[in-house]
Amino acid sequence: MDKTVTLAHGAGGRQTSELIDQVFRAHFSNPDLTADDAAVLNIKGGKLAFTTDGFIVSPSEFPGGNIGKLSICGTVNDLSCMGAKPLYLSCAFVIEEGFPMDKLEKIAAAMEKTAKEAGVKIAAGDTKVAGKGQVDGVFITTTGIGQIMDDANTSGFNAKPGDAIIVTGDIGRHGCTVLLARDEFGIEADVTSDCAPLWGTVKAMFDTSKDIHVIRDATRGGVGTVLYEIAEQSKVGIRLDSKSIPVADGVKGVCGMLGLEPLYLACEGRLVVFAPKEIAPKLVDTLHKGKYSKDAAIIGEVTCDMPGRVIVKTEIGAETLLPPPGGELLPRIC
Amino acid sequence: MDKTVTLAHGAGGRQTSELIDQVFRAHFSNPDLTADDAAVLNIKGGKLAFTTDGFIVSPSEFPGGNIGKLSICGTVNDLSCMGAKPLYLSCAFVIEEGFPMDKLEKIAAAMEKTAKEAGVKIAAGDTKVAGKGQVDGVFITTTGIGQIMDDANTSGFNAKPGDAIIVTGDIGRHGCTVLLARDEFGIEADVTSDCAPLWGTVKAMFDTSKDIHVIRDATRGGVGTVLYEIAEQSKVGIRLDSKSIPVADGVKGVCGMLGLEPLYLACEGRLVVFAPKEIAPKLVDTLHKGKYSKDAAIIGEVTCDMPGRVIVKTEIGAETLLPPPGGELLPRIC
Repeated sequence: MDKTVTLAHGAGGRQTSELIDQVFRAHFSNPDLTADDAAVLNIKGGKLAFTTDGFIVSPSEFPGGNIGKLSICGTVNDLSCMGAKPLYLSCAFVIEEGFPMDKLEKIAAAMEKTAKEAGVKIAAGDTKVAGKGQVDGVFITTTGIGQIMDDANTSGFNAKPGDAIIVTGDIGRHGCTVLLARDEFGIEADVTSDCAPLWGTVKAMFDTSKDIHVIRDATRGGVGTVLYEIAEQSKVGIRLDSKSIPVADGVKGVCGMLGLEPLYLACEGRLVVFAPKEIAPKLVDTLHKGKYSKDAAIIGEVTCDMPGRVIVKTEIGAETLLPPPGGELLPRIC
Repeated sequence: MDKTVTLAHGAGGRQTSELIDQVFRAHFSNPDLTADDAAVLNIKGGKLAFTTDGFIVSPSEFPGGNIGKLSICGTVNDLSCMGAKPLYLSCAFVIEEGFPMDKLEKIAAAMEKTAKEAGVKIAAGDTKVAGKGQVDGVFITTTGIGQIMDDANTSGFNAKPGDAIIVTGDIGRHGCTVLLARDEFGIEADVTSDCAPLWGTVKAMFDTSKDIHVIRDATRGGVGTVLYEIAEQSKVGIRLDSKSIPVADGVKGVCGMLGLEPLYLACEGRLVVFAPKEIAPKLVDTLHKGKYSKDAAIIGEVTCDMPGRVIVKTEIGAETLLPPPGGELLPRIC
């Protein structure tokens, strides 16, 4: 096989077929993977979740993952947030001419491994090649179909006063990791991305209680952006207790040096969960037993007052408004 | 609103919401369009078609369409080829910093119009922004779900000796149009892209007869590449009659000047159909009444001999092998 991707790999002829067979089909093979214009899926009726996400992270490899792993986690997690068991994914690649084949191979291998862990099948794909300088490395778009569980009814519009707010682990690791991987600040810190597929985490919560109002994954924009969105969609206020918010020491250190707010750093393996105060401790107990949620914590509560706002109780007990999200903090972190 | 797309539009905060509301939601609005992590779709069970396609065409506007129209047609047509009524689409955008907002608006408007014509709803989306020079203009990935009609069973593996081969119109217009739009050859010709949504065309054929073996849209790689794929998948030979293949005069002229083979130029609104010889004339009659298939023609037949090959009977009666596809003829034409 060629050592790099060429324009011929994207022309739709023999070389395209070879690339698909040798790299993608080799890793994604399953009985539902299509060789036609579309996959044929046997799906029982009912409520399906459907979501898409484009991944353009730079650099495409970072401590804790690469763009391949990220592209599976992102879409699996979006489905999971709706209480949907991930069933099928499609993946569309845009690759820069000259991209190293061994790097593409590593990306496909990470996708295979992560899809397997999440229990999802890759059923359809597409490969385009753009000329040198017309795309930066590789972009991947994944789209997913999931079967929404009976009784699951989660939405950003469902937060209620009296809900406790849970995060499933320490926050901001992915954004911090990608920032450092860019080598622009000359800072070294022992931080790895939290990037992980979270269907198992969601399933364990639903097995504990069906009464979960909101699940959102805090990706681009971080936990702070997600909280502001939910506060607006549900017309409620949010009050956080800053000392309960789990942040790894490495992330804290980097944020301190660069003046960043961990609440606005991206996560790729963390959920924000709203559920009635009474059941929250039980959910946290469940989460503490999970692979990706050992540091889950209740970080705040939903209030009737101050609808649309997020208030933070600081370490010394003062209450301040979390500055609303806006502007670009970190482009291309997902 | 800003006049160009900025990195802040891709950061996931306030500006991202504004861009989505003002450009995408304004055009794609429908009751199933999600404001959560995934759309919730009520789908009756059974066989669903699922397909994805990335669009990176350069230039992003061309006579007869733009990347927005193309991105809807491409996925609608892939679903249609499986005998599936297109139900839902997702769209993921990667936009270059500095991309003009009015151009993005035109793209979204074309998507709205084409989706409406095809009877498909846009249910989910994603917007990423890459820095200047990190992506060329705008790339769009669409993914579609369709309901496969009872009795429909089309596949590239189903061609049978005795089948007639139909194309639904003159070939090579899209590839020729994009080539000329690049202004690299200083050739002027009155050619517009054939880009069109073809669910109506497919439905009309199925209403005429269910006994259709293969439907494929001849996009990247053109009719020639599709025929070689089917010949290989079905282990059959293909014999074309060159004088029956419809090619517009403008396309013929350009191909003559540049030494191109129309069979290898992309179409974005043409189907290749395999059906038993006996019913082919009836299908062609039906096609002649359709908006996008007035020039449909029987161009050849399937044979037992020469499996995996495509033979062309030339205008003077000689038989030659159509050179198998390979190499890059025209990158970024879809």
